[in-house]
Amino acid sequence: FHPEDSVVEVNGIKIGGKKIVVMAGPCSVETEEQIISVAKSVKLGGAAMLRGGAFKPRTSPYSFQGLKEKGLELLKIAKQETGLPIVTEIMSADKIERFVEDVDVIQVGARNMQNFELLKELGKTNKPILLKRGLSATIEEWIMSAEYIMAGGNDNVILCERGIRTFETYTRNTLDLSAIPAVKKLSHLPIVIDPSHASGMWWMVEPMAKAAIAAGADGLIIEVHNDPEHALCDGAQSLKPERFAH
Amino acid sequence: FHPEDSVVEVNGIKIGGKKIVVMAGPCSVETEEQIISVAKSVKLGGAAMLRGGAFKPRTSPYSFQGLKEKGLELLKIAKQETGLPIVTEIMSADKIERFVEDVDVIQVGARNMQNFELLKELGKTNKPILLKRGLSATIEEWIMSAEYIMAGGNDNVILCERGIRTFETYTRNTLDLSAIPAVKKLSHLPIVIDPSHASGMWWMVEPMAKAAIAAGADGLIIEVHNDPEHALCDGAQSLKPERFAH
Amino acid sequence: FHPEDSVVEVNGIKIGGKKIVVMAGPCSVETEEQIISVAKSVKLGGAAMLRGGAFKPRTSPYSFQGLKEKGLELLKIAKQETGLPIVTEIMSADKIERFVEDVDVIQVGARNMQNFELLKELGKTNKPILLKRGLSATIEEWIMSAEYIMAGGNDNVILCERGIRTFETYTRNTLDLSAIPAVKKLSHLPIVIDPSHASGMWWMVEPMAKAAIAAGADGLIIEVHNDPEHALCDGAQSLKPERFAH
Amino acid sequence: FHPEDSVVEVNGIKIGGKKIVVMAGPCSVETEEQIISVAKSVKLGGAAMLRGGAFKPRTSPYSFQGLKEKGLELLKIAKQETGLPIVTEIMSADKIERFVEDVDVIQVGARNMQNFELLKELGKTNKPILLKRGLSATIEEWIMSAEYIMAGGNDNVILCERGIRTFETYTRNTLDLSAIPAVKKLSHLPIVIDPSHASGMWWMVEPMAKAAIAAGADGLIIEVHNDPEHALCDGAQSLKPERFAH
Repeated sequence: FHPEDSVVEVNGIKIGGKKIVVMAGPCSVETEEQIISVAKSVKLGGAAMLRGGAFKPRTSPYSFQGLKEKGLELLKIAKQETGLPIVTEIMSADKIERFVEDVDVIQVGARNMQNFELLKELGKTNKPILLKRGLSATIEEWIMSAEYIMAGGNDNVILCERGIRTFETYTRNTLDLSAIPAVKKLSHLPIVIDPSHASGMWWMVEPMAKAAIAAGADGLIIEVHNDPEHALCDGAQSLKPERFAH
Repeated sequence: FHPEDSVVEVNGIKIGGKKIVVMAGPCSVETEEQIISVAKSVKLGGAAMLRGGAFKPRTSPYSFQGLKEKGLELLKIAKQETGLPIVTEIMSADKIERFVEDVDVIQVGARNMQNFELLKELGKTNKPILLKRGLSATIEEWIMSAEYIMAGGNDNVILCERGIRTFETYTRNTLDLSAIPAVKKLSHLPIVIDPSHASGMWWMVEPMAKAAIAAGADGLIIEVHNDPEHALCDGAQSLKPERFAH
Repeated sequence: FHPEDSVVEVNGIKIGGKKIVVMAGPCSVETEEQIISVAKSVKLGGAAMLRGGAFKPRTSPYSFQGLKEKGLELLKIAKQETGLPIVTEIMSADKIERFVEDVDVIQVGARNMQNFELLKELGKTNKPILLKRGLSATIEEWIMSAEYIMAGGNDNVILCERGIRTFETYTRNTLDLSAIPAVKKLSHLPIVIDPSHASGMWWMVEPMAKAAIAAGADGLIIEVHNDPEHALCDGAQSLKPERFAH
Repeated sequence: FHPEDSVVEVNGIKIGGKKIVVMAGPCSVETEEQIISVAKSVKLGGAAMLRGGAFKPRTSPYSFQGLKEKGLELLKIAKQETGLPIVTEIMSADKIERFVEDVDVIQVGARNMQNFELLKELGKTNKPILLKRGLSATIEEWIMSAEYIMAGGNDNVILCERGIRTFETYTRNTLDLSAIPAVKKLSHLPIVIDPSHASGMWWMVEPMAKAAIAAGADGLIIEVHNDPEHALCDGAQSLKPERFAH
């Protein structure tokens, strides 16, 4: 019923158009110095947007949970310094008003892909939503979750494949690149790929990013950290700025 | 650090004690007549609690989403008529106050097992929480989600295995009964089994329920409907009252 | 087309009849002393048959590959001493003649469930075949593999569920007990359960064995070793004889 | 211990060198006319080798099992006509002598990846072996199966990823392209990708083939049929010759 591909615009950047859009940045916002440093270097390296977690969904309640509101403040400063739009994850509906004001793309994480009440509330905004695929969500379920957002009137949905859960333990998850042609056939929505979370290992990011583009992805979201060895989370899968630029 | 097994009490009924506790009822509350009829017959059949969905997490936004607040009202009437405590699912933190007042056991569904903001809010109440295992959650992640609730001060957590997602398509999900001895070893929390959602077929409920008890489960949660063929959801996996009693 | 359940007879022992048949013994035949000692103790503990590997399918070519023909000789001695029929695994069609002569039940392992040439050759014998489910075989594929044997004229097939491969890493595999009612509905063949390989941990064998019986299994195949800590393979999942008897 | 990448030579064609090697042809050899026609058109389209099944491992014993020896004869004729070396699957060790004589690359299918007796026998030849990854084999197990062949003295092993089994049902299997960088890191062996079996749908073959090359694959194996709608197997995933050439 929607024969043409959709293009989602973020501050003039078109996702789903002819250009590959790269979002990059650290797993977590840690300090003002860190996020500004990473933001500047990913901009130099070609990124069009800055990603960084302020609210972090961690398996254990005793792990670092993110800087929260303070993290959003630091992201705003990094945006002022670089002009890069901000992509960051929301974890509950009561923060939507704040995110609508401060954030350019609101990310829904894999664990919340079927948090339907959150999706419905996001459907009432007109913010671009980056909807990650759930760890064991079928492609159809994922598209149905996008439908929850669109049914509320917000068509600005970007799908993001970030690896699914399989029996294989060598990689953190199994990146399902066949989701790209599948989504292109079943839906009009743009799709970006997260090779960092999928593989869990920095040296796999480059070949998987290239493969994603070859398969038709509209963009990439990549973890970059100025000091991966001391990152508060996901250091092993983060690229150093110079490797990202390469 | 907690050597003895925990017992969660619900209106005098002990889950995790010597008796097997059976929760039964329809997938969805549909009408006053339906829920009272099912409540009476599952009570006669030996159930200790009434389950029934008022807020329904459906894959598609266009599927029946439950009677919502009206469903909670009907559950309260069924409780008045039968004395059975109510188990029903919550989908967002803004409904907690209402659930604390009206419901006896608050269920967190598989899709929200890692909705950490909801878990944290539930940790501030002292209501018994039935925490379903996520569709592809490891046992360790599931126990960590229980920890999110307990870290807030609410120790009344009941774990519920309801089948995991595998390559097998004959059954709706694959019931992982090895989760029972695993949970008993790793945790002090009681565990109940949902053979209805796991198999997706009514004729598998009986053998899987027996197997669950033999493996050491503390209880069962079973779908029962007065008219499965016309159920608004999950008819194929619902038992008729007479089969449930058997 | 075959409305009654099949009963497979092994030296007068009926598998698929009213009695639960227990097969027990070590992962590998190691020495004459070991196999006779285990055979005597599992007989005392109630086993009806002796299992033990002579030819071992190991992931690495550098791991212990079994005593091979020498192992078959030792199994025969253990049978003479105890009267227990022998269940042991075949790995290639060129050994069929030898197995037909020396062995009572020929086991086809999970890795060979779709070694169709082996299945076809076994279909030309009239020996009872214990057909393990492949690590990621659907129930339908498994039954089709049994059909390969039966199409050749050998109806003496016993199915064996031994755990499937899933994302869960706490257990070695995920025991799919719903395969029991599924097989009972789709097929007339008897089914036995291997809780040892499924869980990979000795302390899970008892609850999973009980669960299997409760779900309707026709028998069990259990690893028992006189000295699990020094076993040449699968020590962690082997029961000591006294625990097996219990 | 083997720091340089291996190159496997097949009639002067180097697999693992700088050029991408494409193997193409039908699922099954059906008639002389068919195989010659497909061979000629895939040669024109750029293929370096001809693939085609003579012995077919089918889930059901009642499905078409291939033309067997007659199929090998037809492959030889197609080779004479086109000069293309032949890649075809072996299913049992008793056929090795024949395959060594008539075939250029011997394929071991996914279902036989852990048919260790077959692997050992192939290790005694010096023929190039195309070892497909098992449907639920980890990358480590797959490399260990290659080791079974190499331990016998045959280093001419080419690995082939053809999709793994996951919960996703939209695609026939899930193509795991992260296996490419993983194999390149863990092993010195060349790796080719089979996008046809992985996806099960012809329109996914092109994007997945491109992605495989971008990720660093050494070659592709692609199903091509002159008349997919009437193919005796796997028609839905076969390309027509003109699309293959494109």
